[in-house]
Amino acid sequence: MDNNRFELNPNRFFNPDPQIRKIAVEIYSKIAKLPIISPHGHVDPSIFVHNKPFPNPAQLFLIPDHYIFRMLYSQGIKIEALGIPTIDGTEVETDPRKIWQIFAENYYLFNGTPSGVWLDYEFTEVFGINEKLNGDNAQRLYDELNEKINSTEFLPRSLFERFGIEVLSTTDAASDNLGNHQKILESGWKGRIVPCFRPDAVTDISVQNWKNNISALSLAVDFEIKNYEQYIEALKKRRKFFKTLGATSTDHGVYSPFTIELTDKQASEIFDKALNGEADSKDAGLFTAHMLMEMARMSTEDGLVMQIHAGSFRNHNEFVFNRFGLDKGCDIPVQTEFTKNLKPLLNKYGNNPDFTVIVFTLDETTYSRELAPLAGHYPSMKLGPAWWFHDSIEGITRYREMVTETAGFYNTVGFNDDTRAFVSIPARHDVARRIDANFLAGLVARHIISISEAKKIAEDLTYNLVKKAYKL
Amino acid sequence: MDNNRFELNPNRFFNPDPQIRKIAVEIYSKIAKLPIISPHGHVDPSIFVHNKPFPNPAQLFLIPDHYIFRMLYSQGIKIEALGIPTIDGTEVETDPRKIWQIFAENYYLFNGTPSGVWLDYEFTEVFGINEKLNGDNAQRLYDELNEKINSTEFLPRSLFERFGIEVLSTTDAASDNLGNHQKILESGWKGRIVPCFRPDAVTDISVQNWKNNISALSLAVDFEIKNYEQYIEALKKRRKFFKTLGATSTDHGVYSPFTIELTDKQASEIFDKALNGEADSKDAGLFTAHMLMEMARMSTEDGLVMQIHAGSFRNHNEFVFNRFGLDKGCDIPVQTEFTKNLKPLLNKYGNNPDFTVIVFTLDETTYSRELAPLAGHYPSMKLGPAWWFHDSIEGITRYREMVTETAGFYNTVGFNDDTRAFVSIPARHDVARRIDANFLAGLVARHIISISEAKKIAEDLTYNLVKKAYKL
Amino acid sequence: MDNNRFELNPNRFFNPDPQIRKIAVEIYSKIAKLPIISPHGHVDPSIFVHNKPFPNPAQLFLIPDHYIFRMLYSQGIKIEALGIPTIDGTEVETDPRKIWQIFAENYYLFNGTPSGVWLDYEFTEVFGINEKLNGDNAQRLYDELNEKINSTEFLPRSLFERFGIEVLSTTDAASDNLGNHQKILESGWKGRIVPCFRPDAVTDISVQNWKNNISALSLAVDFEIKNYEQYIEALKKRRKFFKTLGATSTDHGVYSPFTIELTDKQASEIFDKALNGEADSKDAGLFTAHMLMEMARMSTEDGLVMQIHAGSFRNHNEFVFNRFGLDKGCDIPVQTEFTKNLKPLLNKYGNNPDFTVIVFTLDETTYSRELAPLAGHYPSMKLGPAWWFHDSIEGITRYREMVTETAGFYNTVGFNDDTRAFVSIPARHDVARRIDANFLAGLVARHIISISEAKKIAEDLTYNLVKKAYKL
Repeated sequence: MDNNRFELNPNRFFNPDPQIRKIAVEIYSKIAKLPIISPHGHVDPSIFVHNKPFPNPAQLFLIPDHYIFRMLYSQGIKIEALGIPTIDGTEVETDPRKIWQIFAENYYLFNGTPSGVWLDYEFTEVFGINEKLNGDNAQRLYDELNEKINSTEFLPRSLFERFGIEVLSTTDAASDNLGNHQKILESGWKGRIVPCFRPDAVTDISVQNWKNNISALSLAVDFEIKNYEQYIEALKKRRKFFKTLGATSTDHGVYSPFTIELTDKQASEIFDKALNGEADSKDAGLFTAHMLMEMARMSTEDGLVMQIHAGSFRNHNEFVFNRFGLDKGCDIPVQTEFTKNLKPLLNKYGNNPDFTVIVFTLDETTYSRELAPLAGHYPSMKLGPAWWFHDSIEGITRYREMVTETAGFYNTVGFNDDTRAFVSIPARHDVARRIDANFLAGLVARHIISISEAKKIAEDLTYNLVKKAYKL
Repeated sequence: MDNNRFELNPNRFFNPDPQIRKIAVEIYSKIAKLPIISPHGHVDPSIFVHNKPFPNPAQLFLIPDHYIFRMLYSQGIKIEALGIPTIDGTEVETDPRKIWQIFAENYYLFNGTPSGVWLDYEFTEVFGINEKLNGDNAQRLYDELNEKINSTEFLPRSLFERFGIEVLSTTDAASDNLGNHQKILESGWKGRIVPCFRPDAVTDISVQNWKNNISALSLAVDFEIKNYEQYIEALKKRRKFFKTLGATSTDHGVYSPFTIELTDKQASEIFDKALNGEADSKDAGLFTAHMLMEMARMSTEDGLVMQIHAGSFRNHNEFVFNRFGLDKGCDIPVQTEFTKNLKPLLNKYGNNPDFTVIVFTLDETTYSRELAPLAGHYPSMKLGPAWWFHDSIEGITRYREMVTETAGFYNTVGFNDDTRAFVSIPARHDVARRIDANFLAGLVARHIISISEAKKIAEDLTYNLVKKAYKL
Repeated sequence: MDNNRFELNPNRFFNPDPQIRKIAVEIYSKIAKLPIISPHGHVDPSIFVHNKPFPNPAQLFLIPDHYIFRMLYSQGIKIEALGIPTIDGTEVETDPRKIWQIFAENYYLFNGTPSGVWLDYEFTEVFGINEKLNGDNAQRLYDELNEKINSTEFLPRSLFERFGIEVLSTTDAASDNLGNHQKILESGWKGRIVPCFRPDAVTDISVQNWKNNISALSLAVDFEIKNYEQYIEALKKRRKFFKTLGATSTDHGVYSPFTIELTDKQASEIFDKALNGEADSKDAGLFTAHMLMEMARMSTEDGLVMQIHAGSFRNHNEFVFNRFGLDKGCDIPVQTEFTKNLKPLLNKYGNNPDFTVIVFTLDETTYSRELAPLAGHYPSMKLGPAWWFHDSIEGITRYREMVTETAGFYNTVGFNDDTRAFVSIPARHDVARRIDANFLAGLVARHIISISEAKKIAEDLTYNLVKKAYKL
């Protein structure tokens, strides 16, 4: 077992060059313990309402994390065997120990991936397990983890506090009653959990249940939405409600960042067609593009910071989608164009310094070609951090290398963990902080900036810029 | 002459950082001597049938290698002066010594290119020449090489054995009688040379001699192909025949990886139009896309591993093409899209773990954006190694950096040399092994994986993954 | 104040690895003092005619440099506050000290950007200021700079000589009378300032003042241009005139590098439509594409080297454009395609070794995918250096990494500074030389090339290749 002894190296992820590493350590030491600002993510707020133990290790580490089961699936392991719930009634494995055993036997697949790095952190730093998971120690570690999960110090609120989270944003549908957020506020617990307004389900008229989503929105605003005018009114009202519970931002997931301003008449006509089930995909594209403009307009009025996440082809694998539903690891990026697509939005609102739009991409080719030049010019536009597949050691490094020279550091907005996996939050922020420290150390070692400049920038990237950009 | 003394450095290509280099050396030492698996390439199998000396140094190093003469041509040297055979009757240089002299005088052009690195290896390691070729020593080295070429130990079979090649795959037309493969098997020589089924000449109805190619296919199957049904039958029959001679894979070179399933009726109609010379480019695009689906279907039946090489604009330079024909260094990559194009194929066959499709690209932007996410999800899809222009020190490094974090190591399939230049095979595998060792050493030095994990991965990348993926 | 003491480190920008750094220093020392060849740029030649002191520090460093004010604007500072002249009559700040104060207070925004690195050089090396500019020392440094500006040794001609500029190319409209160039020649001053023929204003029929531009061209050639034939005649005549004043090159800024050859009749028809104000955007696209072919044809006749700068979406921000006009920091790159677009031009003229076309891109994805393969094959095509946003430490590094393995060093053409900011010229060349030295040192340290090969290549990249490619 000694052979399997595993600890995180305090210098991990830093360039091994002694000069760079020394500087990276010095920079990192200034930011390692700063509070975590998590301005965009997908943690379920109900865990903080109930504050009950996580059910078991499989439920905690694997089942909610599509990063993990997609990798196992890619190697021929059935998703059903991992206990992921189906929507078509297919039976799935229910024994968490069997699921855990498969995970453990295939843990080596995560070598060299961000999931591997985050899991190593979670096991060692969060749960004090100093072994690498494998087929042999799987059941023993399951027991050890299970015992810890059930102790007070591993309850969600305890972890939130231990992780040093200053504020955590969830992501919530336009029609959400935000009951959990309300309960957390009323509970007297001091943890700050704020909602984020994400209206995709009602702004994308091509989604399957759009009319049901409009009905849900009607319920939420207490009047029936029968036309475009009422629809706009409803969205405004919901944004206002979200603000009362602490929201400072909106989020918009779009296939393409195409923006265009329709007249009220044109928008009304498409809306009516959609209500009658007669809108086609061209209508849907125009309407989504128009609604981005509308959301920007409302942001200039109510001050909510706008986020655009573009370029994911959702539910690429129809077999998996039909059996397991949304967000199950088969969203695949596509080429994305920003220069032409964002022009209408940026021309209308991008010169307004009171408006902020934060843009995210899965297409790294746009970093240096489109996004850094745009963010390096328009006062309203900021560039979100490396997203999703690119939230990784190499991904964040490429992001800084390709963005900084044109946009500088101050047109970026710090780090987002964007995760459903609550216990991975400190792991993800730690990786981002280390990579930023390492990048800055490279600049210092090459005499591009000074060490004192680097330390100030590191603090800004970790804490100040994200609070400022998201008004948190 | 001492000034020109040249030897390969045993630490070449490794990061000079002492920590990384030390680890890279340790990893490389585990894989340096592993047998070569060459699952995809273009060596002419007849050289192993006849096992005669290579004609002369110019014929051996330069004339079959379009990497080399394209570079000389780009600097204003006429292709005719290099002895490349013409198809339009234009006279070319026939004196190999004159050709060799030009090559030698311009050898410096290959500084910093993979050709330069491979040639350095071939001269020193394969032929024991410890000088850099130049205008002054050209004729002397010509003599030295020529003498060696004509000795027994430099015959093709001797080199095959010396290189430690466990298996070498050629690439062969659907109508090929595989006579050379048959003769090698019958000769009693133990060298394993297997064919690969490449039916582009009959699946792409837009190629100039398509009808002749269909006639050749008819001859090969011993029945006349008069309709689509017979055409499909013929392809099935040929695949079966290829398997009897050891084939484990098919290969498909396409401009775009567009896939779509036509009905039999639609496919038949296009096929008939093509036979009548009436098919247009839209028909050709649809037919190629459909035939990729058909080839995948047959692979699920006969178990041949499918390869797709996409994104080369063939014969870009019409002047060179008209004078020198195919494969003469003027194929130029184009932007390529995989997420949408491969969706039909992956949705139909990609969840079948018995099917394997290995995808290659010349568009590096698709590594992290499309290919790694696809290979990191679909059980059937694997990602081929850095191809063609990207089979190089920087190219393989970028490949690992952009692919590993999302696809892991185990959704890749080791190295392909893809070469026509037989003596370059050990040089190319050596570069790939060194770069993989160096990449892994970087992960170890940054404490992302352990040294023992890195060694295991290195062995898998070099030997186990390629054998498994190609069923060799 | 000692705390703010700032000096350039002699090893700046080199990899901190001791081996690489040592080699980089050795290579750099061979090229650091070579004369500057500046074959493409936008310095106003009149400054050398009048040879008067620059008006003040704000006018010298900030106002002509859209790299700098776009960054300040992106952070919410009004462009008017920076004294940039408006075209719509809006009042702007006229006190250079106030402008300077804003610049100084925001100087930290340039940390990690090429502007920051160049400014550091300009202050220290050109003006002997050994402090980093900030809000506190702003006015004192203003005084110090202002005093120097007004001394003889900081007059434009003195700086030209001190910078070691062997030749400087300006960029000039087709209708320009080149009066400044003429006066410089007549003045007896030995500084070599040559024009470059840039006819975009008359070859792009979609520009606002196209007809006025044609009138100006008519005036310049002394005959009225009433049809396409006369237009072509006029361009030929102007090219000839430019040559008499030392021009060796032309330059063409195009949104897309699309090329196509129209018949004279087709070209005439579009030209006539344009004269009548009836041409549409499709006509404009065809005409520009055709005129690239025409310019190539003329280059084969008169020997002028052709440059193509493609892929910038000009004047993206209409608000800024309407108030401040052209070239004010809101040109944003777009995806660019070369393989298909350049095929007609390269097929017709690309095999002619007497013709040279140098291609520039803002889309780095085309380096390894399209441009290096094209430049590594066609004798006429060379690849221009990293352009605009990519003229930077990381940008040049990526350029060499992505281009060299396929195109080699000898299908590139050295460095272009492409600047309006005269005093930044030595800073920019110094960065490029250091990054090339560092890149070469990396090859040497990894035993890919030898140190003597690297030194020879460095001299070629810095001096010989640019002189040869531009016939200077």
